[in-house]
Amino acid sequence: MKIALCQINPIIGDFSGNAAIIKTEAQRAKEMGAELAIFPELALCGYPPMDYLEHPAFLEGQNHVLDRLIGEINGIAILTGIISACPQERGKPLHNSAMLFRNGEILHTSHKKLLPTYDVFDESRYFQPGTASQFFCLDGLNMGITICEDLFNDPDAFAERLYDTDPVADVNAEHDLDLLINIAASPFTMGKQEVRRTAFAAISGKYGLPLLYCNQVGGQDSLLFDGASFALDRQGRLCAQARAFADDLLMIDSSRLVPTAPPATDQVAAVHDGLIMGTRDYLHKCGFRRAIVGLSGGIDSALTCALACSALGAENVMGVGMPSPYSSPGSITDAEQLAVNLGIRFELLPIDQILAACQASLAPLFEGLQEDVTEQNIQARIRGLLLMALANKYQGLLLSTGNKSELAVGYCTLYGDMNGALAVLADVPKLLVYELARYVNREGEIIPTNTISKAPSAELAPNQKDQDILPPYEVLDPILSAYLEEHKSLSEIIAAGFDEEIVRDVVWRIKSNEHKRKQAALGLKVTSKAFGFGRRYPTAERFQG
Amino acid sequence: MKIALCQINPIIGDFSGNAAIIKTEAQRAKEMGAELAIFPELALCGYPPMDYLEHPAFLEGQNHVLDRLIGEINGIAILTGIISACPQERGKPLHNSAMLFRNGEILHTSHKKLLPTYDVFDESRYFQPGTASQFFCLDGLNMGITICEDLFNDPDAFAERLYDTDPVADVNAEHDLDLLINIAASPFTMGKQEVRRTAFAAISGKYGLPLLYCNQVGGQDSLLFDGASFALDRQGRLCAQARAFADDLLMIDSSRLVPTAPPATDQVAAVHDGLIMGTRDYLHKCGFRRAIVGLSGGIDSALTCALACSALGAENVMGVGMPSPYSSPGSITDAEQLAVNLGIRFELLPIDQILAACQASLAPLFEGLQEDVTEQNIQARIRGLLLMALANKYQGLLLSTGNKSELAVGYCTLYGDMNGALAVLADVPKLLVYELARYVNREGEIIPTNTISKAPSAELAPNQKDQDILPPYEVLDPILSAYLEEHKSLSEIIAAGFDEEIVRDVVWRIKSNEHKRKQAALGLKVTSKAFGFGRRYPTAERFQG
Repeated sequence: MKIALCQINPIIGDFSGNAAIIKTEAQRAKEMGAELAIFPELALCGYPPMDYLEHPAFLEGQNHVLDRLIGEINGIAILTGIISACPQERGKPLHNSAMLFRNGEILHTSHKKLLPTYDVFDESRYFQPGTASQFFCLDGLNMGITICEDLFNDPDAFAERLYDTDPVADVNAEHDLDLLINIAASPFTMGKQEVRRTAFAAISGKYGLPLLYCNQVGGQDSLLFDGASFALDRQGRLCAQARAFADDLLMIDSSRLVPTAPPATDQVAAVHDGLIMGTRDYLHKCGFRRAIVGLSGGIDSALTCALACSALGAENVMGVGMPSPYSSPGSITDAEQLAVNLGIRFELLPIDQILAACQASLAPLFEGLQEDVTEQNIQARIRGLLLMALANKYQGLLLSTGNKSELAVGYCTLYGDMNGALAVLADVPKLLVYELARYVNREGEIIPTNTISKAPSAELAPNQKDQDILPPYEVLDPILSAYLEEHKSLSEIIAAGFDEEIVRDVVWRIKSNEHKRKQAALGLKVTSKAFGFGRRYPTAERFQG
Repeated sequence: MKIALCQINPIIGDFSGNAAIIKTEAQRAKEMGAELAIFPELALCGYPPMDYLEHPAFLEGQNHVLDRLIGEINGIAILTGIISACPQERGKPLHNSAMLFRNGEILHTSHKKLLPTYDVFDESRYFQPGTASQFFCLDGLNMGITICEDLFNDPDAFAERLYDTDPVADVNAEHDLDLLINIAASPFTMGKQEVRRTAFAAISGKYGLPLLYCNQVGGQDSLLFDGASFALDRQGRLCAQARAFADDLLMIDSSRLVPTAPPATDQVAAVHDGLIMGTRDYLHKCGFRRAIVGLSGGIDSALTCALACSALGAENVMGVGMPSPYSSPGSITDAEQLAVNLGIRFELLPIDQILAACQASLAPLFEGLQEDVTEQNIQARIRGLLLMALANKYQGLLLSTGNKSELAVGYCTLYGDMNGALAVLADVPKLLVYELARYVNREGEIIPTNTISKAPSAELAPNQKDQDILPPYEVLDPILSAYLEEHKSLSEIIAAGFDEEIVRDVVWRIKSNEHKRKQAALGLKVTSKAFGFGRRYPTAERFQG
């Protein structure tokens, strides 16, 4: 059977818009000879709808458009993700469902059985697990129809098993299958594409079944859905793969799956492409076209600005330099050079006068008190104020430029450099910032060499360097990864060879800056554990570990 | 049997500190003649530990202290909530458990069966539901031992049934019970105490069983655990109730339960007491004693400041007036009068000079562009900057003063008046702000009468009033409640008699300000749906409802 995997980018709650995309892609698939067009998990309402699922009007809105869609598409079968009402009296009121329809007739509906409830996923909050059979025979083709996490509890593919059941084993035991289908809304993290391919290949090979995987694409707040849908043959060999971080339509002939070489994977390139997609989709889906970036001459703001230009076009990005008495002359020239290289508008707003006015106002209250971090924060907050004024006046969104390493240890000022609608690098550790900067420069200098080579500094005090109070990033980043992503204990990290005093200091900094991150701008997730929605810690606490 | 309900206030992750409280209270209970002392859900680790539950070191830390505790308490049986490892190979790795021990011996362990996963609760994220029997016979007393939500699926007590099973029915069917026990960490919302008493009375009466309810007390970030533990006789009549919003130890004789009149309930007084407890506990548990409050002369900041004084003592609260060219003279005198009434330090920091410097700096970039909300935001952000400078320098926490109504419709400035570590009134609608202010003044004027009686204004533009762009609060607040708390659709709210244009405008404002609330200060929850952790919506979305 000729099947199209339609890797689309829906917008949450935009039922008509999403239905229009589904219609267009179905028509295209039909014209290309497809008998079945497959769309991602919750394609009609967008994923994740979050607490809109608790509004009866959300389900009604989807169903109204769904009814029309079922009547409007003819000559091709459509398999798509939808939300559906759970008829059971007890339990959660909704299912996360897969619906198959053709020529006005609903042929099959079944529901997701494994509901991810960890990290950024909250599906047990909304959905009742399915019990309906996930089998359907379409024109003689026996299909097992699973939804995303349903594939993630196979004992041979995954070390950790979070659920009591294995939907693939169940549907395979019940029926003589020809094909496994998985519709998904699976967000990107580094290495995830390989994890999916390897695990699904194991499942495919184990059951001797071809596997078609159709994933959502697009940025949705913090989440970067990478698409990269694919088809495996019955030995689990990759036969076709859709583009990553872009809409695509992948045509498959289920009876003629020919192995192909897996695409080369470059994690730095993937993060680069993902951040650009995420920045573009966040602004555009929120109704904005323009971005403002404060340029310090440092690498974080330079990289953020370069990514913003790729996402939005240089004509939609404004760079702003805001030197203080502590700024090095090099930092201004580096920022100006970046702006020239990118071809963006650049404005210079020295903060000296405002700083002097603030100091004068506070002087009577600060008299006799020692200078401390307060004075540095004031500078950062003046810059934050000016950038927000420009964002407000020019109807753009301010991009925050901090990286994951500094957000982790609180080396940033709340209501200052943390200001912004989107923190493009919030989940990018500093060492990866360097790799991305070099990748941006892969065909010539965009980010000035001096920006990359100089020692990192916040320039909020005379001769300040990051390494005055932080360990070198080569030490800091692995500690952060062990603690934040792997949940290693202090003693485990120390046992791995890190200095005890440094480890204790870093973990203390992480914990004592939780309050800052609770008010941080939304960041784009690229690691297995990003700050924000998928990482939930109390602020008032005393755990020593 | 003489039983003590020990209503304690643990700190998350403070295993030694919490164990010390348990030991002290157990000793006190023993001295009062108790044979059994009951402690709340997760009393040893604090509730909710959130993602610390994913750190193996957290369970180890608790168990280390638990082992010692079991050996140290003698002569009285202890029933307490703990986390425990789930021995099963598949599923979530932890249980939310109740453990009974005496004289060094563990007598019983069972696990919570119903795991709340809605609003602020994420228990399916961490816990595997229990299957162990919740029955134990202690010295001839047959007890059903349930944990919080386990009581919340009785068809006669609750209209909505979120779970497939009813643990009370199960344990009652298996055993001839003498007594039902429920250990809980159930946060306050308005009316919740009555809901609990009514529902539990129905359960108690239905099974003909006395019911002992032991709830956690204390503020934990946004959550206000109210305590108010109680005992019901076998007809469901209230026989004893512990204090609300304060530690307590309630002694019960299970064979001599004598009905008593339920305490008078005053919702305004309850919110008042809850906000004071929440403010005190948040600051103290985070290691702070001092608070800074910007005083505009308006009712929100006046009420916040009055509550802060009750929570922390007037000597620990500093009020700051920051007049601009648009401030009315009355606003300064009202703020000064409040400070005098409360006996707090008051400082005046006019923002004119800083505002002039900001305007001068931005003038070249704003030339030819219309004045808009940008200019108002700049004033709010200068104030936010000054307040944060004082909080930093004086090592206090800034309290944000905005109410729920303005946070809902975005009538507030991000990085301006939204600045703060804690937003005391973030879940208090404006009409309730007025009621609370009158309650504060119940024994004489603390909040100046003029502050209560004048028309609300942000004073960021000449002659500005809230009602220039917002509907009157008598209209706004019920619309907000219907949409935010009841998830009513626009058409339902309009059908209830509200003006269509106003309803559409209010809902549009709610939705288009989601980004501000994502960066808002932590607020104290008093309604069934507060902004923050328990309310989860996408920012980029297009749902029209």
